[in-house]
Amino acid sequence: MENEHIAALRKEYLKAKLEPSDLPENPVDTFGNWFELALLEKCNEPNAMVLSTVANNRPSARVVLLKDCTQSGLVFFTNYLSRKGQQLLENPYASLTFFWHELERQVRIEGKVHKVSADVSDAYFASRPRLSQAGALVSSQSQKIQSRDVLDKEMERLMSLPETETFERPEHWGGYNLVPDYFEFWQGRAGRVHDRITYELENGCWRKYRLSP
Amino acid sequence: MENEHIAALRKEYLKAKLEPSDLPENPVDTFGNWFELALLEKCNEPNAMVLSTVANNRPSARVVLLKDCTQSGLVFFTNYLSRKGQQLLENPYASLTFFWHELERQVRIEGKVHKVSADVSDAYFASRPRLSQAGALVSSQSQKIQSRDVLDKEMERLMSLPETETFERPEHWGGYNLVPDYFEFWQGRAGRVHDRITYELENGCWRKYRLSP
Repeated sequence: MENEHIAALRKEYLKAKLEPSDLPENPVDTFGNWFELALLEKCNEPNAMVLSTVANNRPSARVVLLKDCTQSGLVFFTNYLSRKGQQLLENPYASLTFFWHELERQVRIEGKVHKVSADVSDAYFASRPRLSQAGALVSSQSQKIQSRDVLDKEMERLMSLPETETFERPEHWGGYNLVPDYFEFWQGRAGRVHDRITYELENGCWRKYRLSP
Repeated sequence: MENEHIAALRKEYLKAKLEPSDLPENPVDTFGNWFELALLEKCNEPNAMVLSTVANNRPSARVVLLKDCTQSGLVFFTNYLSRKGQQLLENPYASLTFFWHELERQVRIEGKVHKVSADVSDAYFASRPRLSQAGALVSSQSQKIQSRDVLDKEMERLMSLPETETFERPEHWGGYNLVPDYFEFWQGRAGRVHDRITYELENGCWRKYRLSP
C-alpha cells in the first residue's frame, strides 16, 4: 500500500452551511428532513448506518439498515443471537452513525435500544423478499463455520419449496428500536471548520447547541 | 418522512465472493489489498471510517479519516481535547468501520489506540493545507459555542497572515495509532447470506475464520 497516498486523501467540504436556527426544534424532524434529501439526491444506500455497541468496555461496530424512524425511535432488524444481539442484551446503549458523502453530511445518534414487539417483527419479516427470509432461516449469525456449503445447500432446499409454503419468522430474529437521547447533525465545511449542531434531551425537552468543529 | 419507503430500501449485493483461502495470512495485507481496490474503483472518500469509542459504558461514533496504515496499526489525527480524545484517554479501546458501498464491502477493525510520537504528529500537521492548519488552531473541538462568528473571524485573521509565518502544531492536536487485535472482512451476498471472514490474534499469530452471515 502506498501510504503517502492515504495521507494526501482529503476532500474539501463546500456544499452547505448549518445554523441552529434553521433546524426544527425536534431532532427527529431534522433527521426526517435530512433523510428525505438523502433519498432525493440519490445517496448510495441512504439507510445504511453504523451501529456501535459495547461489550467488556470495548466498542464494536457494523453496518445495519434503518427500517423505520418515528418519534419513538429508529428501528433495525437482526438476529438476536448474533454478536450484536448478545451485546445489546447485556448493554442496551448503542449509537447510530450515518454518513452521506454526497451531501457532505453526517448524523450521530445515541440512545438505548429495546426489542420491538413480536407483531412488528412478524410484519417486517413477512414483507422481506423470500430470498432474505431464507437467509435469516439458514444463518446462525456470527458463529464460526467451516465453509458456506451447508448454507448454500440449505438455501437451495428452501428456495426449491413451493411459494405457498410461507417462511415463519424465527423467534431469535427481530427488531430493535433505538430511543435517542442525543443527536448531532454535521455539515462538512472548508478547512475542517465544520458546522456541528447537537440536540440534548434535558428534562424531557430537546435543546440545541452548536459545537466547535 | 414516508416510512414505508425506508422499510423497502434494500439492495441485493451480487458483486463478489470471499473464501478464507483466497486471503493473505496477514489481515493488514488483506486490508491493504482491499484499500488499493477501493482507490482504483474510485470509492467515495475511501479513507473515511467510523471510529467508535466508549465512555461510561456507552458507545459514541463519528467519521474520521485514515491517514496511514502499516503492520503497526492504523493512524488518524484529531484534537486530543475533543470528546473522542477525552474518551480515548479514559478508555483506549476503539473500533474502525469502513463501508465501501461501491465494492459491497465492509471492514471492521478492533483494537487499542496509542498516541503517535510528537514527531509524527508534527510531520503530518506540516503536510496539511494551510486552511486545515488554521482550522485546527481556531477550534476548541466539541466545546459548546454561541455562534461561528468567532471562528470565522479568527480564520480570516490567520489566513491573512503572510505564508512565511508557518503555523505550529498545537500540543493538543495529534495522531492516534490503533493496534488491531481483530479484523472482519465482509462481502455482501444475495439474500443477506454474506461472506464474513475474521482474523483473530491468538498467541501473537493471526487466525482466520469464516462466520455465519
